[in-house]
Amino acid sequence: MHSVMRLAAAVGGGMICGALLAATPARTPTLAEILAASQPAEWRQPDPAQTLYVELPAGRVIIELAPAFAPLHVENIRTLARERYFDGLAIVRAQDNFVVQWGDPSEKKPLGSARTELAPEFTTPLNNALKFTALPDRDGYAPQVGFVDGFPVARDPGSRTQWLTHCYGAVGVARGNDPRSGNGSALYVVIGQAPRQLDRNIAVAGRVLRGMELLSTLPRGAEGLGFYGDERQYLPIRSVRLASEVPEAERSRLEVLRTESASFATLLSARRNRQDDWMRVPPRHVEICNVGVPVRESPLR
Amino acid sequence: MHSVMRLAAAVGGGMICGALLAATPARTPTLAEILAASQPAEWRQPDPAQTLYVELPAGRVIIELAPAFAPLHVENIRTLARERYFDGLAIVRAQDNFVVQWGDPSEKKPLGSARTELAPEFTTPLNNALKFTALPDRDGYAPQVGFVDGFPVARDPGSRTQWLTHCYGAVGVARGNDPRSGNGSALYVVIGQAPRQLDRNIAVAGRVLRGMELLSTLPRGAEGLGFYGDERQYLPIRSVRLASEVPEAERSRLEVLRTESASFATLLSARRNRQDDWMRVPPRHVEICNVGVPVRESPLR
Repeated sequence: MHSVMRLAAAVGGGMICGALLAATPARTPTLAEILAASQPAEWRQPDPAQTLYVELPAGRVIIELAPAFAPLHVENIRTLARERYFDGLAIVRAQDNFVVQWGDPSEKKPLGSARTELAPEFTTPLNNALKFTALPDRDGYAPQVGFVDGFPVARDPGSRTQWLTHCYGAVGVARGNDPRSGNGSALYVVIGQAPRQLDRNIAVAGRVLRGMELLSTLPRGAEGLGFYGDERQYLPIRSVRLASEVPEAERSRLEVLRTESASFATLLSARRNRQDDWMRVPPRHVEICNVGVPVRESPLR
Repeated sequence: MHSVMRLAAAVGGGMICGALLAATPARTPTLAEILAASQPAEWRQPDPAQTLYVELPAGRVIIELAPAFAPLHVENIRTLARERYFDGLAIVRAQDNFVVQWGDPSEKKPLGSARTELAPEFTTPLNNALKFTALPDRDGYAPQVGFVDGFPVARDPGSRTQWLTHCYGAVGVARGNDPRSGNGSALYVVIGQAPRQLDRNIAVAGRVLRGMELLSTLPRGAEGLGFYGDERQYLPIRSVRLASEVPEAERSRLEVLRTESASFATLLSARRNRQDDWMRVPPRHVEICNVGVPVRESPLR
């Protein structure tokens, strides 16, 4: 009567649960069905020159950078990676339901040819040349939200600005009180409820495509803001490399579903209107940070 | 130029960061300041008869049950706890950015005098006798949202129903496709972005007051839906007890800020309008699941 496996359907909002449900005529398609029906051209391979591999003892975290939204910060991060700045640094902070952050515990490592201060890119000028797929659902924090190349995006036509939203997996550039003080030498990743209040106050430079569980499961720091009080708790970063600088054979082959594709539109609709043997009351709404943009291993490998 | 500690202010949306900021005349009060100014009568001690201690190898998770929102389910869970049903069971599932779930891996343990099926309590009749503190901010998933006794709540005046929202730390009753199949023998806790799409489709019976990090850091399961494929990965549950059945000396002394208090109103306003040396662009909005209801050790201990 209380089978655990039967209860697999119990918390049915996950990314893949729908595949377990029996087919009924009226139900919305499952994610698995939508992806199975997608066409190869609906998938995009991230640019290796804009992809970071963060090598941790437990594995690789893959970040796609977003030069269209934070060009100066992304360029600085790429410079730091090319010059091996991050190698041997550490994850120094894990705050529950908020962020994991890495940087230089010694605070003394020179930044090389990277810049120490950058003009803020908390927003950038609205670029209508980008393929923006609007989410029709109303957002509380921004006039418009949607997706550009797999990134969750907000826009304000009034001020003609755009910015990446702080969703789960967002990679941001830590800064001090001075808005110019973020330079990419310390980065954070959102590991909890989307802290949308940070939007427009700090630069988001990318998002994690793979390996979130390597960050989200880290022991939380006991000091204020989740910093590790004891340096023995620091998690070493073996290296951070641009994928383009890694030999082809060692690269991960990922594809991201194009957010301007028909299959993504179907996915958005299914999220909003899901109704099936388990879900009787469709949500009729979807938050920008509840969508989840599909990433898969390339079948071309 | 890139001090990690200076960057503590960097990701400044956390619960306690404001305390690090220097005082300026125009800034909103920090959480620490609001709580320091709160009065003893603004804090509530949860009823020990409605509080669960989940004892894990690494420590205690404390759950406050919500009989006002799922009376039948809460009563069944209390019966299961009183009869030691959960002792020796295990956490069998951890799905990244979604839920941790526990239950009986053998699927054979008798439920004792608890019921195996319950009438669904995905919503309950709107109860105007409850102290509902409305959040003025518009919500995407529900006509009204706010707080009752520290619990995040949604209401629909049209259908005269109320329900607990799936925020971080929400404790829900796993079920199968049959809406009557949830009985409390398997429970899940939200460990990621609020899966609000589950609202009104499954019973939420409480919320975690302490110990979220003991759940959120668990290794993710590799099987579908985050189930552990190998039973050696199961995390044993030593016991689940009602606080009222634990000797006084072994009880945790927690207090929850009353969500109908003046200090909580100040906190909501500060969340919505935060502006200080770090945050230049106030969010002007707060989501129900981004508020965070303060819990503290009782100073009366």
